[in-house]
This record gives sequence, C-alpha cells and structure tokens, in this order.
Amino acid sequence: VENNDTVLAQELVNPLHNADIADLFELIGEDERAPLAEALGDLVSADVLAEMNDYVREDLIEVLDAGQIADLTEQLDTDDAVAIIEDLEDHEQLAVLAELEPEDRAAIESALTYEEETAGRIMQREFVAVPEHMMVGDLIDYLRKNDDLTTEFWEIYVVDPAYKPVGTCQLSWIMRVPRDIAVADIMKREQTLIPADMDQEEVALRFQKYNLISAAVINDDGRLIGMITVDDILHIVEDEASEDVLLLSGAGEGDINEPIRDSYVARVRWLIANLATALVASFVIWTFGAAIEQMVALAVLMPIVASIGGNAGTQTMAVSVRALAMNELTRSNTRRIIGREFRIALLNGGTIAVLVGIGTGLVFANPLLGIVIAVAMLINIVIAGFAGIFVPVTLDRMDQDPALASSVFVTMITDTMGFLAFLSLAVGSGLVNF
Amino acid sequence: VENNDTVLAQELVNPLHNADIADLFELIGEDERAPLAEALGDLVSADVLAEMNDYVREDLIEVLDAGQIADLTEQLDTDDAVAIIEDLEDHEQLAVLAELEPEDRAAIESALTYEEETAGRIMQREFVAVPEHMMVGDLIDYLRKNDDLTTEFWEIYVVDPAYKPVGTCQLSWIMRVPRDIAVADIMKREQTLIPADMDQEEVALRFQKYNLISAAVINDDGRLIGMITVDDILHIVEDEASEDVLLLSGAGEGDINEPIRDSYVARVRWLIANLATALVASFVIWTFGAAIEQMVALAVLMPIVASIGGNAGTQTMAVSVRALAMNELTRSNTRRIIGREFRIALLNGGTIAVLVGIGTGLVFANPLLGIVIAVAMLINIVIAGFAGIFVPVTLDRMDQDPALASSVFVTMITDTMGFLAFLSLAVGSGLVNF
Repeated sequence: VENNDTVLAQELVNPLHNADIADLFELIGEDERAPLAEALGDLVSADVLAEMNDYVREDLIEVLDAGQIADLTEQLDTDDAVAIIEDLEDHEQLAVLAELEPEDRAAIESALTYEEETAGRIMQREFVAVPEHMMVGDLIDYLRKNDDLTTEFWEIYVVDPAYKPVGTCQLSWIMRVPRDIAVADIMKREQTLIPADMDQEEVALRFQKYNLISAAVINDDGRLIGMITVDDILHIVEDEASEDVLLLSGAGEGDINEPIRDSYVARVRWLIANLATALVASFVIWTFGAAIEQMVALAVLMPIVASIGGNAGTQTMAVSVRALAMNELTRSNTRRIIGREFRIALLNGGTIAVLVGIGTGLVFANPLLGIVIAVAMLINIVIAGFAGIFVPVTLDRMDQDPALASSVFVTMITDTMGFLAFLSLAVGSGLVNF
Repeated sequence: VENNDTVLAQELVNPLHNADIADLFELIGEDERAPLAEALGDLVSADVLAEMNDYVREDLIEVLDAGQIADLTEQLDTDDAVAIIEDLEDHEQLAVLAELEPEDRAAIESALTYEEETAGRIMQREFVAVPEHMMVGDLIDYLRKNDDLTTEFWEIYVVDPAYKPVGTCQLSWIMRVPRDIAVADIMKREQTLIPADMDQEEVALRFQKYNLISAAVINDDGRLIGMITVDDILHIVEDEASEDVLLLSGAGEGDINEPIRDSYVARVRWLIANLATALVASFVIWTFGAAIEQMVALAVLMPIVASIGGNAGTQTMAVSVRALAMNELTRSNTRRIIGREFRIALLNGGTIAVLVGIGTGLVFANPLLGIVIAVAMLINIVIAGFAGIFVPVTLDRMDQDPALASSVFVTMITDTMGFLAFLSLAVGSGLVNF
C-alpha cells in the first residue's frame, strides 16, 4: 500500500485509533517504517508516538531534530512526555529540554530527577486539587471555568493549606449531592498515598489490592505533587508479570522489536552462565566414568533423572516467583509454604519413582537398576522442591529479582544432584563395581 | 493473638482495609482461619470475602448455609456476587439462588449463562445509561435524585431508543460544561463495545490498548447489558500474565492456597508427560550405546549439549509466548520474527560452539571431539530457535494456549536433537567406530 499512493494510505489510516496506527508501525518491517511515517504525515501525532513500542519509536524519532521532538512532547501529559524523553541519549535530552517551554521543561526535569521505574517518573503533574471547605457547587463552577485543566481525571484530591492530601473524591460522588455540600463531607479520608520514590511494581500492587482508579503522589514532605491513573498501571502490571517469564528463561527484555544485537547480548550471557553450571553436572558424570563404561544403561537413563527433576524444580520455582511478586510469600508464611511444597514433592516423587522404577526394572530385566533409579528419582524431586523455593527466596532476601537467574541455579542443582544420586546409588548398591 | 482475646483481635483488625483483612486470612494456616473468622464476626463483611483468594474463601463459606451466603452476596455488585457463587458446587448454587431476592437472582442466573472467563461473567449489571437528547443539567439532577444507582462509575453510556450504545461520556467532561449542553454534544462516539461472549483475555487487551477506564458490554442484538470497569481488568491482566509462567512449567494454577491434592494432580500430569518425552531422548542414547562404551567422554559431554540447547529453546519460546499473548505475533509478521530468531540463534550458537569446542578440544586433548561438539552445539541451538517459535505458534493456530505444554515439547526436541546430532557426528566423523 505505502510504496506509491500517499493519499490512499492516509485515507486508509485516518479512521483508525491512535493505538491501531502505532500497532501498524510495529507490525511492518524496520525499513518500511520511515516511508510510512512520511506518507502519513500529520496523522503520526504525538499520541500515536506515545502508544508506540519504545524501539519502534526510537527508530522514527532518530530522524527528527530537537525542536520537532519538543513540539511533539508538549502536546502530551508529563508522564507520556517523560517516557519519550527518558529514552533519548543524554545530549539529545539536553537539546530537547532546551527547546521546551520553561514550564514544561521544569516539570520534565523534575520528573527526570526520580529514578526510572518509580512513581515520580510515571506520574502526571496535571491533576485537580481543591481545599477542604470548598462547596460542591463552587467546585463544579471552578471546573467549568478553567479550560487549562487536564482532560482526563476520575477523582479530585482534597488538600489542606500545606497542600497535603486529606481525602479523595470520586467524580460520581460529587455529581450525586446538592451544590451546598462541602467536599470534605463526601470525600473518603482513607487514602492510599504513593511516595514519589516508590517502585512502580509496588505502586501497581497497591492499585490491584485496593482497586484504585487513581492515586495521589506525594513528595518527602507529604505534599501533593502528582497523580497516577490506572490506565498507566495496566501497562506496568502486564510488563512486570511478563518480565518474569522472560527473566526466568534469561531472554532479556524479550521484545520482538528489540535490535538483534541487544537480544544476542542479553541471551548469550545466560547461555554462557548455563555452560558454566552444566560443567558442574558434567564433572559429576566424569568422576563416575568407569561406572558408565561398565554399564552403559546408566548413560541411557541419566537424562530421565535430570529432566524430570529439572521440571519439578521449575514448577515449584514458578509458584514461588509468582507468590513473591504478589507479596503472598513473606517471612511469616515461608515455613508453611516449604512444608506444602515438601508434601507435594513427596507425592510427585513417589508417583514418578514407582513408574520409572518398575519400567526400568522390566525393560532392562534388572530389578536392582529399577530400585536405584526409583530412589534417585525420589531424592531428586524432593531436592528440586526445596531448590525451587530456596533459590528465589534467597535472591529476594538479597534484594535481587527472584526471577532473574533462578532457573539456571535450580537446573544446576537438579542436574547435578540427579546425576550424583543416581550414579552414586548405582555404585553404592553394588550394581557396578567402582 | 486470636486464640484468646476476641475483643483485642477486633480492635486490631478494625482499622484495616477490607483487602488487608482478606490478606490476613490468606497468610495464616488453614486451621486458624475458621477461629479467626469467628473472633472477627461482622468485620468479615461481604467486601472482605470478595477480596479473598478463591480457595481461602471456599474454606470459610463451607460452614455457612445457603441463606447466609445469599445475604452476603446481595450486598455486592453482580460481578463480585457471581465470582463467589460460580465457585460453589451445583446443588449449593441452586440453594443459594433460591434464597436470593428475585431481581438479584435473575441478574446472577443470567450472568451464569455466559461461559466462565467471558465478558458476561465479569461485567456488572449496575451502570448509568441515558438518552442522547438529555441535557447535562438534567443528567446531574437525575444522578442527585436516584439513590439506588451503583456507587462506582466513571463514565456514563448514552443509548438510543433501542438501548444500543451510541457514545460514552467521562464524568469529568460532564462537570466541565454548562447545564444546557446535550450529552450527545460532549460524548465520544468512537467506542470500544465488548460483546458479552468475548474472552476476558481479549477484553483485557482492549482495555490496555485503548486505555479504557470502563467499557459497555452488549448482547447479540447490540443492546447495552452491562459494564466492565478497569479495576477488575487489573486482576485479569495479572492472572493471565502469570498464568503463562505457571503453564510453561506445568505448575497448574500455582496458587499457594490451592489444596495439596489439586496441586499434586496438576503437576504430576506434566511430570509424567515429561517422562514420556525423556524416553525419546533416552532411546537415542540407547541406539548409540556402543559408541558411549568406546568413549565415555561422550556421556560426560552429552548434558552440556542438551542443557544449553534447552535453555536457548526456552528463551525463544518465552519471547514467542509473550508476543502471542499480546497479539504482537500474527500471521503477517511470523516470517519476519522467524528470520529474527534465526539470526540470533546463529550468533548465540556460533559463540557457544567456539567456547565449548575449544574448551573440549583442550581438556580432552582431542581436537576432533572439540569440532564434533562445536558443530552439534550450533545445530542444536539453531533447532532450538525454530522449535521455540514453531511449537507455541502451532499450538496457537490449533486454538490451544501456546504456553501450555510448549515447554515439554521444546525440551524434548532440544534434548533429542542435541543427543542425536552429537552422537551421530561422533560416529560419522570417525571419532568412534560403530
């Protein structure tokens, strides 16, 4: 479509929602994006850019100069503007900031003083705050008169003279009472205030737990400085939850629009780490080389012990990582959860041990080999259960992301212990002489 | 605290938010829950139950009779009431429905006619809908007069005489215009309507994509029948995203409050499936038994080839599963993504092949063995890249959840192909005679 007829392309794209136009850019190949942007012209508005994937947006913005970027960001709320500017190189950031109107520049510079992924970065500075004594009627008149207020708000904040939030009022509550009621009489005093330096994952958990639509952000002095709305939180919840699946596998950001070189660097690191841990398992096998030479069936069966142990460990680990992320696994119930996983491991281990033991005994016509692999299987699945909890919990206590690297450690433990249990039992039981 | 002093317990819990009281029940052990509920009495309100984990709530509700459950659910919006009632056994469900007021019963029965996890189940039937010609002033008066409207709404829906939605109006827009403007003049006509039978995951994607706060649910005739609000979507996004991490590992629901027997059944199924696929890999090794007897180093190195291949496959799989869940991987860009993963696999495979090849050649003082493992490694990582895309994409095309079982298939492929490539190259290169 886009290689010849710009008028047709514009007509096709015009009725689409901004988010759909952004999607279109994400779907097509890298080399087609610049021509499409050119063909669409003004249809690629600031709002379309705000909806776009970071990597795709960077591609498009690269060709713009600082003045053009500044013009685009001035049309957005602070949170969206910050999201675009924070991804720029340092010198570009300075150039764009210099082009902004003083007021916008101050807002964005102050947002950039907070760490990435904190409340201060994701909040918007456009919100409605009113004093306690205000009447509902006056509030409605105030809203009607002030054209420069933010267009999207769902709750208003009631503040004391020091600009500290004392309550929150849903718009629906305001519309349902007569004009002569004070906002202080209908507001909810029980509030969830968000400190500006709170991690965005923690902010998202608050929104989920208390079913919030918006929340007031306060600075160190407790003064109201911004607002976070639930639509931004929706993206954070999605990102943080899918981060786990990607971190566990060591796939980096896992964005399909990430440059190949970045994906390579992110992934190969974990493959090399995996290589190092696989060496430990190989070393165990090496020390039992003579046993394997005597009975090659051991080499045939080894992968079964390791593979099922690894799977059992991954199951427990997935459960622990989720529970940690949801704040459901805390110091107070760790012991109960360990007991729970231990019992599940015994049941799973028992079942698999019986199946594998009988199968092996029959196929190899060797009952002792069946018993050896059954016991090794049970031991490895129980170890897997403990490893699946201890590794993520330990990482969490060390203030690391429990999803990161858990997988590599757990698999190393189950591989190594599986081989060790199986081969040493084979030797210890007299199945092979060593 | 709770074993002796009910007054103290009530005093401690009283200032807590409903969600925090629910959390308290989730944190303590199963046998402590009933006594705590008794001690707290009325503090365990319907809203507390609505915030509670399904399994924990079932524990508590079991001791109540149908009349008590009916009283509790009548205090809730339909979506929360349905969430409680849908988890009951069939005969309990009928008993509770019989105890409900006719109007509530009709609403809940109609919700139960929709499949679980569809829009019809999660919507609430309490919403505000007004005709197009209504003036803003009349609307405000209408809201002020009607006490039995739902308390929580953020947008009102404008409907035509056939009760079909024609527009949506944010409350903030209504408050910012004079009383003599028609709602039709300020409403947004571009709407995202949700059919009642739409899957909740799809609904959540719409909310994320279009930054919705609430959305109108329509029946087959296009008539407005309910409303979904973003606070419910937040929980669905979290659940669906974390489902992937748990499904990939075969850990079932992965809820730490799930009864042990359910967890055992969910997990052991996948371990048995894994056992079946591990047998395929073992069979490959078996056919090369003579080669391993000749050179035990092959058995020592096998796990390295399989383990790193498995990790590479899991990385690609995690990326594909997320992209599929987010609707980012579609028929139109599958080829581009395959090309992308192929190039990453070549880079990763090349790097690991060189490291492993040189290391092996030196340690075993056998350059040919180094070349054999390097080539096998490269082949396996490239196969892993393809398997990591094809398995989830194929499951998706077959209308299965791509996360379910992907892991078992991908690992089977990387294990089997890794052993096959490594051992057959060892034989083919003349490293061992076979």
